[in-house]
Amino acid sequence: MPVGRQALFVVLWLVLGLAFPATARAQAAQADPLPSWSDGPVKQAIVGFVSRVTTQGSPDFLPVEERVAVFDNDGTLWQEKPAVQGAFLAERVRALADKDPSLRKKQPYKAVLEGDLDTLMEGGEKALMELLAATHANMTQEQFLADVREFLKTARHPKLGVPYTQLAYQPMLELLQYLRDNGFQTWISSGGGIDFMRVFSEEVYGIAPQQVIGSSLAEKYEERGGRQVLWREPRVDHLNDKEGKPVGNDLHIGRSPVFVAGNVRSGGDIAMLGASQERRGPSFQLLIHHDDAAREFAYEEKDGASLRAAKEGGWTVVSMRDDWKTVFSGTP
Amino acid sequence: MPVGRQALFVVLWLVLGLAFPATARAQAAQADPLPSWSDGPVKQAIVGFVSRVTTQGSPDFLPVEERVAVFDNDGTLWQEKPAVQGAFLAERVRALADKDPSLRKKQPYKAVLEGDLDTLMEGGEKALMELLAATHANMTQEQFLADVREFLKTARHPKLGVPYTQLAYQPMLELLQYLRDNGFQTWISSGGGIDFMRVFSEEVYGIAPQQVIGSSLAEKYEERGGRQVLWREPRVDHLNDKEGKPVGNDLHIGRSPVFVAGNVRSGGDIAMLGASQERRGPSFQLLIHHDDAAREFAYEEKDGASLRAAKEGGWTVVSMRDDWKTVFSGTP
Repeated sequence: MPVGRQALFVVLWLVLGLAFPATARAQAAQADPLPSWSDGPVKQAIVGFVSRVTTQGSPDFLPVEERVAVFDNDGTLWQEKPAVQGAFLAERVRALADKDPSLRKKQPYKAVLEGDLDTLMEGGEKALMELLAATHANMTQEQFLADVREFLKTARHPKLGVPYTQLAYQPMLELLQYLRDNGFQTWISSGGGIDFMRVFSEEVYGIAPQQVIGSSLAEKYEERGGRQVLWREPRVDHLNDKEGKPVGNDLHIGRSPVFVAGNVRSGGDIAMLGASQERRGPSFQLLIHHDDAAREFAYEEKDGASLRAAKEGGWTVVSMRDDWKTVFSGTP
Repeated sequence: MPVGRQALFVVLWLVLGLAFPATARAQAAQADPLPSWSDGPVKQAIVGFVSRVTTQGSPDFLPVEERVAVFDNDGTLWQEKPAVQGAFLAERVRALADKDPSLRKKQPYKAVLEGDLDTLMEGGEKALMELLAATHANMTQEQFLADVREFLKTARHPKLGVPYTQLAYQPMLELLQYLRDNGFQTWISSGGGIDFMRVFSEEVYGIAPQQVIGSSLAEKYEERGGRQVLWREPRVDHLNDKEGKPVGNDLHIGRSPVFVAGNVRSGGDIAMLGASQERRGPSFQLLIHHDDAAREFAYEEKDGASLRAAKEGGWTVVSMRDDWKTVFSGTP
């Protein structure tokens, strides 16, 4: 069975959510605004751009309201092996199976419990939408947010043994703060669920919920059990990936970002990075390349599309290995 | 032909957009934060609430990030006779008919040009969607915004003879500023088009585009004429009216507003006002009643649902006649 647009929502997290990572370590920070960034052309390009657009009288000067910076999340602001929302989905399936052990023998639950991605993908759209409905929908928004909060409190990265919220990239936290200190609004625009990310975005990144853009299920405001509630429908309303990102950004921000950061994985950020170059006036594109097998992971796209687009567009490519002194925000 | 959900998007503006208003005048302001509000229980209720939620140590104290205020637009922040987006639609139809005079004899264009609402409604969903497609869609987002900007620059209120942007309510502008001075974020949540409102929200209300929530058409990011553009599809993506408002608010804000203002017209704000009472902790609901035939308009809902809901919920009802010293922001 082919996988349709709706189910891509699930695939997006699951493909990496079931994969397990290697190793990774962190370090401490010093005094300059970007202490975890190695001196070199990438750091210079960032600082140079921010200086140009914030210096009164510079031909590239941008008034504060136009200083909009947008970041992808998984693989750009924190690690994505496993994708945290995929791990959440798997954890919810385990909880469901604890309550109803018959699920252990029933697809697609069995495949999730066994980490059997091939069988899952064979189940196609139908299987993936069933998983989404069982773990992310048919409940109030309030209940869903409580589930996510509980998961983030208790879950640990399978290899690194620390809470996922400690696995943000330290250099990117510094970059977010540096941009805010220079009058930028910082936003997330991710394929992840908008509500899922809003649970931790403020605590982990200092990004308020209203500045988070993501994929979403349809919601209804209706009476359930004698109360008016926001009810999560088992139907994808917006898929914030690839060409969906400029659309989501326009819907939420209403003006074109000037600073956009994404990462190499599935070409998911190419459209959003490219779109920022269509605006009149200055813009900056940052692409994170995962080439650090020792401290994080080394992975490439099969088709190399993101790196090729970066070359064509003149985007700034970050080598995690060479450009970052520290990787993770959490304990070393 | 019955009118379906999609076409409600158009009906919403058009019903009042083709109606013409009576008279209205404005006055000047003094020194206290709400000088255009008459002293009395309504003003006291507003000031009392803001004081309670912003006073450290008060049992109702709210940290700054929870201070979210949401306002309906048409009839709440500015006049709605005619609904400005309805006037825009009619103006676009006139421009189309200038280019192609055959439209003057063709429905539904003929009905719009003649202000013939009955014939329009008989045309039902199909007629309304055709109008929406011809005036609001099948173009780039950039082109649409340019059209709206041009309209707002040149259009005048048919009776009052001033630009629509001078017909914001002075007491509400003061209230927006008063709330912002007390650490509130101010948002719009309206049945109007999200992109339409963003063109003037900052200039007229001091509300940045990213804090505007409204109805929207589906957009696609795709290649047109050799460029990657945001393209407006002739398909309603979200109708931000009635039960759609709490959904739109959740999607954009990600937390429940504590201060919500709407107006009496079609019951469009009841759900959003009621939803704010479902949150834990303090909240405030303001409902504008149009009872000022001399300075603005006097109109009621046929079923009286909004005023009834206000009574049941203990919401604060504003009598424009008694509670506002001044009505419009523009020149008298």
